[in-house]
Amino acid sequence: MRIADLPTPSLLLDLPKLRRNLAAMATAAARHGVSLRPHLKTAKSVEVARLATEGQAGGITVSTLAEARAFAEAGFRDQIYAVGITPQKLDAVASLNARGADVKVITDDLDVAEAIAAHPGRLGALIEVDAGEHRGGIAPDDARLVAIAQRLGTRFAGLLAHAGHSCAGRSVAELAAIAEAERAGLVAAAARVRAAGLEVPIVSMGSSPTALHAERLEGITELRAGVYMFGDLLQCQIHTSALEHIAVSVLASVIGRRPEQNRLLLDAGALALSKDRSTEAAPEDYGFGLVVDLEGRPSLGRAIIRRTWQEHAVVESDRPLPFERLPVGAKLRVLPNHACLTAAAYPAYHVLDGGDEVVAVWQRVNYW
Amino acid sequence: MRIADLPTPSLLLDLPKLRRNLAAMATAAARHGVSLRPHLKTAKSVEVARLATEGQAGGITVSTLAEARAFAEAGFRDQIYAVGITPQKLDAVASLNARGADVKVITDDLDVAEAIAAHPGRLGALIEVDAGEHRGGIAPDDARLVAIAQRLGTRFAGLLAHAGHSCAGRSVAELAAIAEAERAGLVAAAARVRAAGLEVPIVSMGSSPTALHAERLEGITELRAGVYMFGDLLQCQIHTSALEHIAVSVLASVIGRRPEQNRLLLDAGALALSKDRSTEAAPEDYGFGLVVDLEGRPSLGRAIIRRTWQEHAVVESDRPLPFERLPVGAKLRVLPNHACLTAAAYPAYHVLDGGDEVVAVWQRVNYW
Repeated sequence: MRIADLPTPSLLLDLPKLRRNLAAMATAAARHGVSLRPHLKTAKSVEVARLATEGQAGGITVSTLAEARAFAEAGFRDQIYAVGITPQKLDAVASLNARGADVKVITDDLDVAEAIAAHPGRLGALIEVDAGEHRGGIAPDDARLVAIAQRLGTRFAGLLAHAGHSCAGRSVAELAAIAEAERAGLVAAAARVRAAGLEVPIVSMGSSPTALHAERLEGITELRAGVYMFGDLLQCQIHTSALEHIAVSVLASVIGRRPEQNRLLLDAGALALSKDRSTEAAPEDYGFGLVVDLEGRPSLGRAIIRRTWQEHAVVESDRPLPFERLPVGAKLRVLPNHACLTAAAYPAYHVLDGGDEVVAVWQRVNYW
Repeated sequence: MRIADLPTPSLLLDLPKLRRNLAAMATAAARHGVSLRPHLKTAKSVEVARLATEGQAGGITVSTLAEARAFAEAGFRDQIYAVGITPQKLDAVASLNARGADVKVITDDLDVAEAIAAHPGRLGALIEVDAGEHRGGIAPDDARLVAIAQRLGTRFAGLLAHAGHSCAGRSVAELAAIAEAERAGLVAAAARVRAAGLEVPIVSMGSSPTALHAERLEGITELRAGVYMFGDLLQCQIHTSALEHIAVSVLASVIGRRPEQNRLLLDAGALALSKDRSTEAAPEDYGFGLVVDLEGRPSLGRAIIRRTWQEHAVVESDRPLPFERLPVGAKLRVLPNHACLTAAAYPAYHVLDGGDEVVAVWQRVNYW
C-alpha cells in the first residue's frame, strides 16, 4: 500500500528519520560512557523499542502498566516504570516480576516505601529526586531521602531524576545548565545515601534536551529520554530536533476549501492531532501543527493549523495555498507540536522506509 | 467491582446523570415537535446510543467511519456522517449501505457532489450550510447551493448546519439568537433549493447549546447534538449543563503530596484528561479539570488541575487540601473541561448506577 491509499487521518512513521534520531542519542550517551534507557512513553511500540535499545544495555523506561506488561511480554525484562507508584499498583508490577520481568518502580514517599518493603512479591524501587521542576521527587537535601532509602532496604535500587522543565529551556547553554543541575542534584543525593551505608546501583537522569546537551555526566549511570526518537515542533525549537528530522506525521485529507480566505479544512482535528499547544510559548508558534506536502516537504509555506474541532482543522498559510492542486480529497501531512500526545491518538504506525510505500504497520500500546 | 478497586486512570459514567441529560434534550426536541438525531461523537458507545435514541425516530449522527461501521453493525441503520466527505471515503460508506445501512454523507463541494452522483453504490448526501461559524458549509445565499443540489440529483437528501460557535455564546439570549440564525439560514437555503424544484426531506440543525435554547424551530425537521449527554465544565458555563449533571469523570490516584505548597500530584495527566483548555476563555477557568471526591462532590473546594504532563497532573485548591485523608494511592475524580476529548482517551466506560459499584463496562469506538 502507498501513502496515498491510506485512510485519513493516519499516523506515519519515517524509518530513516527514526534511525537517524536513535543514532544521535546513542552517540550522545556513548560520548559520556553511560548507557541509554530509552523511554517508550512516546513510541509505545515493541518494534521501536527493539531499534532504540540496539547497542544499549537493553533496559527501557515505561510510563504505564500497560506498557510494562506489553514490553515484558515482548522480552524487555529490565524496566523502570517512571511514574510515582501507588501501593495499589504494586501487585500488578510484582505479578510481571514473578513471570521473569524486572520492573522497577519509583517513589518519593515514606509510606509507599513501607508498602514496597512489606510487599510479598519481588520488587525493586528507585527514589525520585526533584531536579528542579518541582513536579515529583524529593530535594537532594531533604531529610526523608535517606529515610526512604532505609525503609526500602534491600529493595532500594537507586535514584532517578527528570528535568522536565528543560522543555522550557531556549538556548543550548541553558539546557546544559539544567542538565548539570539535574546531574549535580542526583550526585549529591547519591552521596548522602551512600554515606548512610547503602549502595546506589542506578543513578538515572534524563529528558531528551538534557540528555543531548549535558556537558558532563560524572556520577550518572544511565540516561532516559523518549521524544528524541520522533522529534516534534517544540523539540525543533529547543535544539533537540529539526524539521527534516521529525519522524512522525499525521496524514490528512482536505475536506473543505475557502480560496477567498486562503484557508483549507482538514480531517485531522483535535482528536487526530491532540490539543497540545506546546509551541504557544516557543519562539515560533505552530498553532496545532505545521502542514507539509505528501512528501513531507514544507512546500506550502508556513501553513499552520490555526484551529481545531473534534474532527476538523483549519489551515492558514503566509503564502497563497495551491488550491489548484488541493481538491477535496487531496492528502497532506501535519507535523506535530508534541509527538507523544499526537501519536497517542492512533492504534498503530504506518511505517515508511524512505519512499511512499507503507512497509509495515506497528501497533502501539495505548491506554493504561 | 467497586470504584475504589478500579485501576487509575479510568473513565466513569454515571447512569442516572446520563439518563437525566438524555431526558432534558428529548423534552427540548419534543417541545418543538422535531425529532432528535443524537450525535455519537461524544459517547462513541452502542449502549449509550440505544439509550439516547429511546423514544426518537432512531437516526443517529456519527463523526468517523469507525463509528458508522460499529453502529451499523449494532443495527443503527439511519445515520448522518457529519464531517465533509471526500471521494476516497465513498466506497467505505457505500459498502455499509450495501449491507443494509443508510449512512448519509455531507458535502459543500461541487466536485464531490459529482463524485457522489457518479458513484455506483447506494448513497445519500446532505449539503452542509454555513450557519455562521465559517468552518465548513456554504452560505445560504451562495449560488453553488442549488448547483450542488442539482448535481447530487436523486441522491440529494437535505440540508445540514452546525452552529459550533454557540460554544462561545455566554447568555441564554445569545444562544437563542445563534440558534435562530442557524434555523433561519437553513430555512432560507431550503426555500432556494425547493424553488429550484427539488424536495428537501431533511433539514437538520444542532449543537447542544442551540438545540436546548432554540426558541422556535419552524422549518427544521431534526436536531443533532452530542455533548449534552455527558455535560462538562464548559457546557456548565454556557447554560447547557450543571456541575451535578456531569455524567463522565476520570478516576485518578494521588501519586504525590506537597502539603507545604497545598499541592497534589495525580496520575491522570495530559493523556487521561486531554489538553483541552475550553474553559480558558469561559467565565470560570478550570485549568485542565475540576477535582472532586470519590463520591463526585466538590468537597475539596475549587481544586483545579493547574498543569499536566503526559501522565501527571498538579492539583491546587483555594482551600487547604485534606492531606490527612489523601495519602499516595487515595482516589479522586476529575470532571472534564470537554467531555468529547477526555472520553476519547479511554477504551471503555465503567458504568455506575447511583452507587459505588461498577454495574457494566461499555466499550467505546475509538480511532477512525
